[in-house]
Amino acid sequence: MPDYKVYYFNVKALGEPLRFLLSYGNLPFDDVRITREEWPALKPTMPMGQMPVLEVDGKKVHQSVAMSRYLANQVGLAGADDWENLMIDTVVDTVNDFRLKIAVVSYEPDDEIKEKKLVTLNNEVIPFYLEKLDDIARDNNGYLANSKLSWADIYFTAILDYLNYMTKSDLVANHPYLQRVVDNVTSIESIRSWIDKRPKTEI
Amino acid sequence: MPDYKVYYFNVKALGEPLRFLLSYGNLPFDDVRITREEWPALKPTMPMGQMPVLEVDGKKVHQSVAMSRYLANQVGLAGADDWENLMIDTVVDTVNDFRLKIAVVSYEPDDEIKEKKLVTLNNEVIPFYLEKLDDIARDNNGYLANSKLSWADIYFTAILDYLNYMTKSDLVANHPYLQRVVDNVTSIESIRSWIDKRPKTEI
Repeated sequence: MPDYKVYYFNVKALGEPLRFLLSYGNLPFDDVRITREEWPALKPTMPMGQMPVLEVDGKKVHQSVAMSRYLANQVGLAGADDWENLMIDTVVDTVNDFRLKIAVVSYEPDDEIKEKKLVTLNNEVIPFYLEKLDDIARDNNGYLANSKLSWADIYFTAILDYLNYMTKSDLVANHPYLQRVVDNVTSIESIRSWIDKRPKTEI
Repeated sequence: MPDYKVYYFNVKALGEPLRFLLSYGNLPFDDVRITREEWPALKPTMPMGQMPVLEVDGKKVHQSVAMSRYLANQVGLAGADDWENLMIDTVVDTVNDFRLKIAVVSYEPDDEIKEKKLVTLNNEVIPFYLEKLDDIARDNNGYLANSKLSWADIYFTAILDYLNYMTKSDLVANHPYLQRVVDNVTSIESIRSWIDKRPKTEI
């Protein structure tokens, strides 16, 4: 079995899909949490000076979605064929577009600009994406692709806390099919066990 | 052979990787170019109200990277195993991060803010990404992953005109290994033939 290490800050956010996927597959991993003080010295050792980074038998890789897809293949959560993988990839990229649209407002440093952007985000962007994603989850019986569990469900559920944190809301509260996606993922024994034992962090 | 249609505006940009990949595999496709006048009526028929959209035997899909990966699998430009695919996915996602960092400045509507952002983009972001990508191309003998042709090379080369357009520059001019990537792709007969016959557009 390969030796896995996840390098990230002491937050869930973009590192959590990796931790969920490794936990799902019962693959032991070193959950390395870097403090803000340690980061400047470590930054130059990371492929693009960013985290999360996954280390597989000493080889460091980056890009959270690419790493998640790789791990999904190791733990049996990829699609059965190219078309199923396309359905998974499409919804994961859509979830990520959604995340970026939230992040660009959440991290806006100018308060006046942020207020303006928040109006569009809350009145248009968030309802649009949630409705589309909820429709997809409805059409796929409580999953995000191919009417069965895949890494798309894991990815969405794992970053949901981060999306909720940025939007100061409970995004799935009024979206019953997305709630079913979350329930389907969090009721898996290995995921449940990870959630129970992981460090408690706000983000 | 499936019936392929590419729906996009009359520009290269994010549709061009799909057209390159289909051309590479000599897969006939309907190159549907929507005018700005036609778009409002068509928008609601597209999965997320966006293009490019790929239609495969009547089924419409979206997300340019996901569609490119799917087509790469159909034309033999994916990796040989999960690790090779991880290397490809990582560099494609990095190219896309680069594109987004350029686009957010290029599409900034406020001139004063744009001027400020351009300084960081030109002095820090662009040199950083180009150096990293050129190093990758050097380490992979003129390819972006696994020292052999993959859809990462096609993706980069196909959107390069768009990146050059947004930055008003020739991004690979002083990056010899990235220039080799472009040369390796554009010297392929089927790609050459597509470039010669495609509609001439600025973007």
